[in-house]
Amino acid sequence: MSQNSDLDFSARVRASFEKQNAMHLIKAVMPLVEKGFSEIHVPHWAGIEQQHGYVHGGIVGMIADTAGGYAAMTLAPENASVLTVEYKMNLVAPADGEMLIARGQVVKAGRTLIISKAEVFAVTGGKEILCALMQQTIMVVQGKAEK
Amino acid sequence: MSQNSDLDFSARVRASFEKQNAMHLIKAVMPLVEKGFSEIHVPHWAGIEQQHGYVHGGIVGMIADTAGGYAAMTLAPENASVLTVEYKMNLVAPADGEMLIARGQVVKAGRTLIISKAEVFAVTGGKEILCALMQQTIMVVQGKAEK
Amino acid sequence: MSQNSDLDFSARVRASFEKQNAMHLIKAVMPLVEKGFSEIHVPHWAGIEQQHGYVHGGIVGMIADTAGGYAAMTLAPENASVLTVEYKMNLVAPADGEMLIARGQVVKAGRTLIISKAEVFAVTGGKEILCALMQQTIMVVQGKAEK
Amino acid sequence: MSQNSDLDFSARVRASFEKQNAMHLIKAVMPLVEKGFSEIHVPHWAGIEQQHGYVHGGIVGMIADTAGGYAAMTLAPENASVLTVEYKMNLVAPADGEMLIARGQVVKAGRTLIISKAEVFAVTGGKEILCALMQQTIMVVQGKAEK
Repeated sequence: MSQNSDLDFSARVRASFEKQNAMHLIKAVMPLVEKGFSEIHVPHWAGIEQQHGYVHGGIVGMIADTAGGYAAMTLAPENASVLTVEYKMNLVAPADGEMLIARGQVVKAGRTLIISKAEVFAVTGGKEILCALMQQTIMVVQGKAEK
Repeated sequence: MSQNSDLDFSARVRASFEKQNAMHLIKAVMPLVEKGFSEIHVPHWAGIEQQHGYVHGGIVGMIADTAGGYAAMTLAPENASVLTVEYKMNLVAPADGEMLIARGQVVKAGRTLIISKAEVFAVTGGKEILCALMQQTIMVVQGKAEK
Repeated sequence: MSQNSDLDFSARVRASFEKQNAMHLIKAVMPLVEKGFSEIHVPHWAGIEQQHGYVHGGIVGMIADTAGGYAAMTLAPENASVLTVEYKMNLVAPADGEMLIARGQVVKAGRTLIISKAEVFAVTGGKEILCALMQQTIMVVQGKAEK
Repeated sequence: MSQNSDLDFSARVRASFEKQNAMHLIKAVMPLVEKGFSEIHVPHWAGIEQQHGYVHGGIVGMIADTAGGYAAMTLAPENASVLTVEYKMNLVAPADGEMLIARGQVVKAGRTLIISKAEVFAVTGGKEILCALMQQTIMVVQGKAEK
């Protein structure tokens, strides 16, 4: 009965996200998961700032990496895990504003490797400004147990 | 009399690091700063883990980015700030062990751009295993005030 | 009277392309230049192949780099030159087919740095397949003379 | 008695290089192959220049990609082929001088993925200047036939 239904992949991905302590630490949430897509939000709060009062570029990288990785996981087999092989970020504007939104999207899904990209936007008063751009390689690993 | 002495650059860089709330959040410290080099340590604790119990790849990215950035800052003029333009991480082994050490090093320092690289090691019982490799472009910005 | 008209930027960019011997060597042409955009075509011929008979990944990189760079040049001041600071390619499918098309597009244009991206497609019988994805950082240099 | 002797891997890698038409096109040679390492040389000639008279950044990328890829191939099984998944180049100085040398080196060799890095030097009167820095992900593919 276990079809890989929309419900299945979404529940799998959300359960994995919940186990990522680092996402909780920075107060990130994942309000949206679709086939080949995921979205992560993080409020701008003092704890994640760098020395100019913007959100730290490494935090921007964290949510971009995670959004791309979970976009990939939606297309991986049920019993498989995904690991980041590499990612590359361009930080094109300061990560300022009230919150950040990272949108991850699969570009090409192979059996072993999945290529994703992500964009991160800084949101102020409902207006989004692109602040980062990412390309990423994800590896699909069979039977690697999560916590 | 204000030569850019070893004392000067080291104090400047350490003061900037202290203003990075995100570094405190993940419990990172910067025990070593030299001309063109910096080292950041972070203990492996539950709050920075991902779903397999390893340190989150985004955290690995954060400390690599920061180590490379401060390596660059040691070579920037006294009144200048440094901003990350882009970075690229290869995660070559799980970030496991008792602590992580990121070593950032300047490859080429120009007036406007500084190219750095970093390696991140997972340390267990004093033994270091390479877990990540980074290349990075840093921009030197005159007169950008820190907090 | 020298407005930076459409005619101006297009002529400037095309003149620069003509001076790129390496583009002639691989038989590349640039049929399209618009504000923030450029397109480079290269036929699939034996001289640019790698060991499996596909177009060499480095050639794919060359046309992606060049397409992104000239997209950036369309937004640079008249007397300025553009230099590639860095680029990152993901090769997502073999570069096979009758010809390759690289489409470069500016993501964010600053005074000193311009961030571009490019996609490369392999074309067979009019059908395009994505074979590469690039992110790139370009530096605007005032008064650097071309040949 | 086909051990994977030094002779074997070197002959395999050199035979593969010979099939890369694109390497012949740009007049590149591979004078050195060792376990986990390869070196590619290309003379500075007019046909590979860009608009300022330097060697084209894409050519620099080609030889860095190829040097890293063949460094990886020395560690792959006899019947396996290697494909570039992605690479990232920082161009840190103009590729000027009499010739370029690309040195590729394996950082971490897994069964499916091999991570390499490369440096490219511009040589003038025997003096080497670093002009580019690369990180790269290579995939090992079983039984993929070369030409």
